[in-house]
Amino acid sequence: MVQIEIDPAVVEERIMTLGAIGACHDTGVCRAALTPEWIDAQALVEQWCKQIGLTTRMDAVANLWGRLEGTEGGMVIASGSHIDSQLPGGRYDGALGIIAAITAVEALKRQFGAPKRPLEIVSFCEEEGSRFNGARFWGSRGISGAIAEGDAEAISSYDGTTLAEAMRDIGLDPARFADAVRHDIEAFIELHIEQGPVLELEDLPVGVVNIINGSKGYNVRVVGETNHAGARPMDTRRDALVGVAEMVLAINQNALTMGRPAVSTVGRLNVDPNLGPAVPGKVDFTIDCRHNDAAKLEELSSAHEQAITRIAEKRDLEISWTSRPPLAPCPCDPEIVRVLEESAKSQNIPSLTMPSGALHDTQRISEVARVAMVFVRSKDGRSHTPEEFTSIEDAVAGIRVLAGALHALAY
Amino acid sequence: MVQIEIDPAVVEERIMTLGAIGACHDTGVCRAALTPEWIDAQALVEQWCKQIGLTTRMDAVANLWGRLEGTEGGMVIASGSHIDSQLPGGRYDGALGIIAAITAVEALKRQFGAPKRPLEIVSFCEEEGSRFNGARFWGSRGISGAIAEGDAEAISSYDGTTLAEAMRDIGLDPARFADAVRHDIEAFIELHIEQGPVLELEDLPVGVVNIINGSKGYNVRVVGETNHAGARPMDTRRDALVGVAEMVLAINQNALTMGRPAVSTVGRLNVDPNLGPAVPGKVDFTIDCRHNDAAKLEELSSAHEQAITRIAEKRDLEISWTSRPPLAPCPCDPEIVRVLEESAKSQNIPSLTMPSGALHDTQRISEVARVAMVFVRSKDGRSHTPEEFTSIEDAVAGIRVLAGALHALAY
Repeated sequence: MVQIEIDPAVVEERIMTLGAIGACHDTGVCRAALTPEWIDAQALVEQWCKQIGLTTRMDAVANLWGRLEGTEGGMVIASGSHIDSQLPGGRYDGALGIIAAITAVEALKRQFGAPKRPLEIVSFCEEEGSRFNGARFWGSRGISGAIAEGDAEAISSYDGTTLAEAMRDIGLDPARFADAVRHDIEAFIELHIEQGPVLELEDLPVGVVNIINGSKGYNVRVVGETNHAGARPMDTRRDALVGVAEMVLAINQNALTMGRPAVSTVGRLNVDPNLGPAVPGKVDFTIDCRHNDAAKLEELSSAHEQAITRIAEKRDLEISWTSRPPLAPCPCDPEIVRVLEESAKSQNIPSLTMPSGALHDTQRISEVARVAMVFVRSKDGRSHTPEEFTSIEDAVAGIRVLAGALHALAY
Repeated sequence: MVQIEIDPAVVEERIMTLGAIGACHDTGVCRAALTPEWIDAQALVEQWCKQIGLTTRMDAVANLWGRLEGTEGGMVIASGSHIDSQLPGGRYDGALGIIAAITAVEALKRQFGAPKRPLEIVSFCEEEGSRFNGARFWGSRGISGAIAEGDAEAISSYDGTTLAEAMRDIGLDPARFADAVRHDIEAFIELHIEQGPVLELEDLPVGVVNIINGSKGYNVRVVGETNHAGARPMDTRRDALVGVAEMVLAINQNALTMGRPAVSTVGRLNVDPNLGPAVPGKVDFTIDCRHNDAAKLEELSSAHEQAITRIAEKRDLEISWTSRPPLAPCPCDPEIVRVLEESAKSQNIPSLTMPSGALHDTQRISEVARVAMVFVRSKDGRSHTPEEFTSIEDAVAGIRVLAGALHALAY
């Protein structure tokens, strides 16, 4: 396979230039979908695409596309990620995948001229759901046909704006969402920071993702009885928080016992009335559990359900939950995974074939195209924080792996 | 001893009339200190005092006093409680103690004429601290000399008003706080709802409080590391909430193991960043622990400190805490306790001599006078909620016990 040449200085300059838009908390980024900062960032991505000779357009659900025609036409080979961030997020989550796609296509064009197959770069709208919570993966849902009539009107941001209003503000007609669906993409590869510590622990710059873990989420409510913290004897209490504490430990233990890649997290927990001198009467919490094997995910979530039911019963607490629609594990296309592995190997870039613990737009795109992902090492495994960091060397290594695979698929 | 005659209809009418001021949530009361509702309620108490022939005044820290002169003068025998409430609170917490004092003095005056010793009724300002959190027991602190220069200026309500501003609004000069100190009170008896289930479980209407439990409070912070809930393997996490869950169970178990009257409560707990897909990086929580024996309280709080330190160490979490000034257990005056027990016995009112798990103004007044308390049964042991309830029969029983004791002390 080919050797791709990438200039580290260009990659670094692009990271810092994009990271300056919506910069916050020293090294962080606050760039929520469809805000002025996000619009500026999309404009920058568009400008970069044009500079390397791509034709650009914004689709009906606010994804930005850049296209390089292929000499033989046919189905599209695509790459990209998102520029919206957590609040605050870092400079790399999403943004690096777009810079990677641009830098890879630029290098391919310079080294090898026009491709046979069309190459496209995409900047997805609202991956994080950090502004429009119910619109997570909005852009990639639009591409894969997973948006329904009225969704944009029904989804509101934390500031009260509906997604439909925010779309109209940038000149889009929310009713035309179906125009964004693509059936002409053959392969999609997303480069992303790992967001976990596996590559760092293995001392490797690059991962080739062969499966994106499935996930199941719960919102749980536990109700006991609030009482006076001084006057109520311990042995007569129905303390919701004490029960939930036992549940948190059981959920943690279930995932530990199953072993990697099983994970389970109680990330959000709210106590009511949440007063120092009151026995907690009600606790709401979330469970997020993930696995790369659908049967194991089911086993894991069942174990959680059994544990919390048993604990609630034992402690005379009422329990109820809703579970969010599960996302099935998303196996990547074996052929593209092989192409990525070969790209790494032939360029002497050490890599690990691994699952993705995090969810990605790629999962949605898998519904309409063959997909895979490239991971690059995250410092301390951190993400969703201004402290997230990936070295330029690792970014370049990942971009070279991506570009080698795009070459194999499009040239 | 004497038999006191109390008209249940009058007690009920007073409960409902006072409960109508600041009424909320059907059967609840929202009456924060120094608000318009509270001012109206103090005015009603003043009017009732005048109707039964007392002279009234508001002291320098917003306590309302009613006084019936004694034929022989001397030190004062006093009773009362507070009219400020939790938000929302119920109709009985505090309010019943004022109604009891007025109804008892009224009955004594009617049955026995003027007392030898002066009798006073007091409605304390801001017992709950539900508006001015740092001013809990403000009125009784003022009487016992536990207010310092600048306190009223330094304490703000949740709505941003300083206590000093709120005092000026009702015509008080915050600088004159020391005028409220009393050294002429011989005995103070507060009637209060139990706020716990002990009397109900024992099937008794009345309790005679022989000690108010001491308390120690902590604000604890546990710091781990926030990470991506999907990408971070379980075995590499420093999940602050999992650690705190273990601490909550240990604190609960410590108090259970020590047995009654030991209690310990984690009542407030806040998670950061508190997002479903993020491993909790930081958790703040409170510990409230109480016992009627100072050495046991120390033993209990030490056990908590050791447990949370050990768990933090084991889980590689950082831990720090501040402990709020401990309140020592407050033994009631044995002579007044005996008088109350005799009052109950001679009037054929079944009673239990018991500790108070909750804190009360009485604790503060104990610094300048001999004190004791009368408890009346709480339905389901509930308090600090609109659902708190005490039957008129139980209220009348408690008032008779109180009045019998006031007779023994003042006539």
